[in-house]
Amino acid sequence: MRIVETGYQKEKTEFFGSKFCIGNGYYGYRGTLEEYTKDQLVACTLSEIFDDSGNGWREPVNVPNGLKCTLLCDGEELSVLTKEPVEHEQALDLKGGFHERRSVFVSKSGKRIEIKTERFASLKDLHLLVMKYAVIVDEKAELVWKSHFDCDIWDINGPHFYEQKQGEIHGIDVVASTTIQNKKKAAVGQFAVIREGEGKLLRENGEITVTSVLEKGKTLEIVKYVSVCKETDCVLPEVAAADICLDASEKGYQYWREEQEKLWKERYEHLGIEIIGDEEAQLAVYYSCYLLLCSAPFHTDTVAIPARGLSGQVYKGAMFWDTEIYMLPMFAFCEPEVARNLMNYRVKNLAGALKKAAEYDYQGAFFPWESQENGEDGCTHYNLTDIFTGRKMRTYFRDKQIHISADVVYGLWKYMMITGDYSLLFEGGAETILECARFFYSYSYYKKGKHRYEFLDVTGADEYHERINNDAYTNYMIDLSLKTALHVIEYLKKENPAYFEELLKKIDFPDAEQIIGEMAVELYLPQPNADGVIEQFDGYFKEEDLTIEELYSRIIKPNEYLGSPTGLAVHTQILKQADVVLLLSLLGDQFSSEIKEKNWKYYEPRTEHGSSLSTCIYALLAAQIGMTDWAYKYLMRAGRIDLDGDYKLYLGDLYIGGTHPAANGGTWMVTVQGFGGLTPLEEGVSIIPHLPEKWTQLSYCFYYGTGRYRVSITSEKITLEPLEGEHILKVTTETGTYTCKPTEKLEILRGDTK
Amino acid sequence: MRIVETGYQKEKTEFFGSKFCIGNGYYGYRGTLEEYTKDQLVACTLSEIFDDSGNGWREPVNVPNGLKCTLLCDGEELSVLTKEPVEHEQALDLKGGFHERRSVFVSKSGKRIEIKTERFASLKDLHLLVMKYAVIVDEKAELVWKSHFDCDIWDINGPHFYEQKQGEIHGIDVVASTTIQNKKKAAVGQFAVIREGEGKLLRENGEITVTSVLEKGKTLEIVKYVSVCKETDCVLPEVAAADICLDASEKGYQYWREEQEKLWKERYEHLGIEIIGDEEAQLAVYYSCYLLLCSAPFHTDTVAIPARGLSGQVYKGAMFWDTEIYMLPMFAFCEPEVARNLMNYRVKNLAGALKKAAEYDYQGAFFPWESQENGEDGCTHYNLTDIFTGRKMRTYFRDKQIHISADVVYGLWKYMMITGDYSLLFEGGAETILECARFFYSYSYYKKGKHRYEFLDVTGADEYHERINNDAYTNYMIDLSLKTALHVIEYLKKENPAYFEELLKKIDFPDAEQIIGEMAVELYLPQPNADGVIEQFDGYFKEEDLTIEELYSRIIKPNEYLGSPTGLAVHTQILKQADVVLLLSLLGDQFSSEIKEKNWKYYEPRTEHGSSLSTCIYALLAAQIGMTDWAYKYLMRAGRIDLDGDYKLYLGDLYIGGTHPAANGGTWMVTVQGFGGLTPLEEGVSIIPHLPEKWTQLSYCFYYGTGRYRVSITSEKITLEPLEGEHILKVTTETGTYTCKPTEKLEILRGDTK
Repeated sequence: MRIVETGYQKEKTEFFGSKFCIGNGYYGYRGTLEEYTKDQLVACTLSEIFDDSGNGWREPVNVPNGLKCTLLCDGEELSVLTKEPVEHEQALDLKGGFHERRSVFVSKSGKRIEIKTERFASLKDLHLLVMKYAVIVDEKAELVWKSHFDCDIWDINGPHFYEQKQGEIHGIDVVASTTIQNKKKAAVGQFAVIREGEGKLLRENGEITVTSVLEKGKTLEIVKYVSVCKETDCVLPEVAAADICLDASEKGYQYWREEQEKLWKERYEHLGIEIIGDEEAQLAVYYSCYLLLCSAPFHTDTVAIPARGLSGQVYKGAMFWDTEIYMLPMFAFCEPEVARNLMNYRVKNLAGALKKAAEYDYQGAFFPWESQENGEDGCTHYNLTDIFTGRKMRTYFRDKQIHISADVVYGLWKYMMITGDYSLLFEGGAETILECARFFYSYSYYKKGKHRYEFLDVTGADEYHERINNDAYTNYMIDLSLKTALHVIEYLKKENPAYFEELLKKIDFPDAEQIIGEMAVELYLPQPNADGVIEQFDGYFKEEDLTIEELYSRIIKPNEYLGSPTGLAVHTQILKQADVVLLLSLLGDQFSSEIKEKNWKYYEPRTEHGSSLSTCIYALLAAQIGMTDWAYKYLMRAGRIDLDGDYKLYLGDLYIGGTHPAANGGTWMVTVQGFGGLTPLEEGVSIIPHLPEKWTQLSYCFYYGTGRYRVSITSEKITLEPLEGEHILKVTTETGTYTCKPTEKLEILRGDTK
Repeated sequence: MRIVETGYQKEKTEFFGSKFCIGNGYYGYRGTLEEYTKDQLVACTLSEIFDDSGNGWREPVNVPNGLKCTLLCDGEELSVLTKEPVEHEQALDLKGGFHERRSVFVSKSGKRIEIKTERFASLKDLHLLVMKYAVIVDEKAELVWKSHFDCDIWDINGPHFYEQKQGEIHGIDVVASTTIQNKKKAAVGQFAVIREGEGKLLRENGEITVTSVLEKGKTLEIVKYVSVCKETDCVLPEVAAADICLDASEKGYQYWREEQEKLWKERYEHLGIEIIGDEEAQLAVYYSCYLLLCSAPFHTDTVAIPARGLSGQVYKGAMFWDTEIYMLPMFAFCEPEVARNLMNYRVKNLAGALKKAAEYDYQGAFFPWESQENGEDGCTHYNLTDIFTGRKMRTYFRDKQIHISADVVYGLWKYMMITGDYSLLFEGGAETILECARFFYSYSYYKKGKHRYEFLDVTGADEYHERINNDAYTNYMIDLSLKTALHVIEYLKKENPAYFEELLKKIDFPDAEQIIGEMAVELYLPQPNADGVIEQFDGYFKEEDLTIEELYSRIIKPNEYLGSPTGLAVHTQILKQADVVLLLSLLGDQFSSEIKEKNWKYYEPRTEHGSSLSTCIYALLAAQIGMTDWAYKYLMRAGRIDLDGDYKLYLGDLYIGGTHPAANGGTWMVTVQGFGGLTPLEEGVSIIPHLPEKWTQLSYCFYYGTGRYRVSITSEKITLEPLEGEHILKVTTETGTYTCKPTEKLEILRGDTK
């Protein structure tokens, strides 16, 4: 599957940088062209290394660009920045995460020069970035190709390196950079070879020059190996960078390319998605999964997935609640090792969450809103700028979105439910869950006259309404996290009472069970009103009820932030994103289809989708209740967001461009959990599909417990094929509950239920 | 005592309109000149009649101006609006509330014409407004004086009359106006006579013309009687308006003037303030009391005193918490009948407070933030405009300043304590107090881990910080109101158990005593920290700590509102006004002098005094703890506010000019309760004075119970002289507790305590 854009579209430089990005979880590399510089937002963004330069926010660092190169033909530079190409194409071949570029220039002297490049972020060696650069001429021409580290780095809040040392190690050019805040070191190495064609390669002062007098119809092909090394996994990053370039060039381009295809193929097989009858949807889903996998930490549990993946530094490279709610499901079902890393990232950073709670005079664990590599909150109290006054605005993302701790517990619970891996509980998971419950107890207030616990002054999923009371999403998610804590207590008491005793002592929480139990019973859960609608928060229905068009008509300045403290949506019923609808899709077993539909229909026209976390959830719930037309419409908005670039680029004056992992993960959720109807249960799964009309068949694969399965759904039947493991799976469908044995394909006729 | 301004100061037109205003509680008349129109903010503002024209806020109405007149000399108009006077003086003689004006013009032909006017708002007949207009010429001149109703009324949110009918009744010109919203009628009558000098008076179509050929050195003196009648007390306002003019003219100018002086003299005698050694302070105090008395409802309990008195329509003519906290003390001690009216106004409007609480889903009585004549809240949810965007801002004055209900209870408690009049309890007072307690219960939340009731999401006295938790002022005032409720319960159970039973049944609050009792025990009262400072609200100490100058340096637009939602002070420690310091001065018996001083010194440099309610409280507490230099400095700021015009004229684009009754009442408080040390106790009073150095003697009068007393304080002794009644008064001073018998002067030597 290929994503292609034809013709040079200068105005889409920023967008294509995200759309065509590549990455391997260790780093991301934006989909920029080889001649680009910081002005075109070139970035090789690292995971795991963050820096606060003192010029703004703490954010992930970008390293020097090792792919920068220019081509001269008969002394004339061939660059889209200075010359319009006569043909141009940029593409992404999902098969191996190959970024492709093809440009044809006509030189002043009328020669036709074709440039073809291919690059990929190696999965085989995560430090490796490989590029092939080919030139073909229609007349003999003198070519000069130059490449060097571009150390003039694009940063949002940089520069982040207090020094950049360039030198040579083992005959390889290396630049070693050291961050300002924590003196973390990253190194980039470069090495080039001529793979085809006659030419002379010269290395001097870090610059590689290839000169060639190329005959008509001949190809000059250069391969450039760039290594990216960090001290997080390399003792001496600069030495490692050199060694990796040497190793890479020894194995050669073909080796790395084949390995790349093989490893991506494995990933795609784990997804196993096949949509018969709808190639467009198939592409959107695969592209979404591709983007998400590009940023996934297969190699570490010290970071999760940033809100813009590794497509740049936006949102401080921080991990939000999206990880648990939007991304975890795909990984838990298809790449459980990554899911474990993601959850371990939270568990290992419990200390930061305890510290944050204490900072606000609460007890227990209050997870960061914008979590970085150290488990501290990258979110500031002044997170936005008022575009009317230029003043920083006090925002409450950091201190009031307490649902984050419930989301983490939800993630742990989902992870355990799907993988059957309870070992995390004994490695900090149980402690995390209990500390989250303790946090909620300390945050709660008891309303005496009404005999209930309430959660006041919070911000829910919909960020346009800050500091509200009894947010439905928040309260229900807290309820789930309390119940999870009680399950865990029960589990530990049964499985390892000594450990449980020890734990309670360690965290000094002897009355945990009693306190959590009482609160779980008396927690206020807003119920549907007479119209079946759950009020998003106390007083929401009293806010101004208007159309989104009417709201837009009040905008007086472009990019106005619509949320708190004074945005246009604040005192209206307009939502930024799915909120009650999110709740109903996550905790689906607690609500009837009728309630789900009523809420969907109430909130949908009031949702502005000002967050990329929104459309996929509208699709998901619609799919789950069989509103397949609506679901399909929203699936395509979610699944195509990074293909079409139909998202907000600015909040006030804050640039928020990049890819959208939550929407990417959400797209998988809609496909598999929505249309495909896959839901994990305490024991086994349920598969209650609702396929869009044109999908004649949907297949997908998933892990559950120790088994792996392929599901195929048509209007007639559901076929469940065990692929791995000895697991005996209980499956509930529209027609009953079945057992799938390890070696037998199970076919379930669907009857009239479609 | 006279207030004088010499020379015509055009730029002070607005300010002098307030500074020189007159009034009698029935109406107020701004200190404008006779030739002025709406452009110079002429206003005759009524109490008791409010209107919402649909053009903005509900506000008191202004009636047509009956004093408008112009003078022509030899055909040339003599008006400060068109001609610079060669001499000019505007004055207020406090003796009788006489507004005086003297202007000398030199005509084109070189003649010197002197105009002298005097006007007053009659206390004898509250409907009456009387003016004397005299002209003297230095050469024979032809004069034409014209006067008519100026029906082109200055309104902030008007016009408020859907019709204005002009006509003649009993030979008197009358204009009858009917409001838009409630069809309330008010009428103004006019009648003029020549009192001195030769002239011809002609009445035609509502215009009165006096023509005179005046000889050199002679005086032409015209008296104009204007009547103001409302349907609140006149069955047919237009007929009453005519009758009053007739009656007035029959009795004649001298009669009304003498009565006026006599009645003001009585009022001043009730105050009895004499400051020997400081005429400036004496003047400031008397002027403050004058202004407050001008707006006081001696005649009715259907309104209290608006936040800008009767000096115009600002702040919607609404009654705020200032009434109880800042104004009531002077009335309770000096005009107890007015104090009863003020408290009755609240008690009678309990229904409005119950309704407001229900509107926000609370129980009990939530008194209006901006109370108008009907007990409904004139305050809107969008009370200010953002001057950067022109958009209305959601403000929380209305819904979060819950301390208003505690302030009302405080007022009732003070009133009863000072007057000994508990009869109000049986006329709605007890019900009001219990319903306020019920409101607080329903608003409170219980913090389980901390075993305490808290008050969340409130706004305290300092309005720059909205929506905060556990505001010290609020919590302590609620504590007082709960304890008052318990006292009242105890009192009723003892004095009239049947009534108490009945009352609980009527208001369906059988467990009142238990609920209020429990809450009073467990209510959270923020305690002084290690430095002895009480934190204004949860988290206040964490806010940015900067100087006021630094704050001001951040202002980018004149009249920026500094408060919520996004004003510059919001996330700083800068206060609008005395808050904790107010608490410490109101509930002084609960705190040591040391704590008071420490808090005063902490908060004083952080207080911007952006409210006229601030400086007097800083003066009061400073005086009470003997910081007399500071107290004096702040007394003069409070006492001279309306003399000097040193106050904010705008909040954003909202005009807030006028007189400042709270500061006026506060000035009395500082003088008598601060320097004079008078404090009401459960039984008797304490008098612990701290005189400023230059005050060699301070005297004042007060009622207590059924007695009236004069106190004189020197550095050597306190003399207490009973003036009225059979009361035996217990008096506590620095040196001990004494008994003052009805007929004996009590002299207490002060010892070394100064």
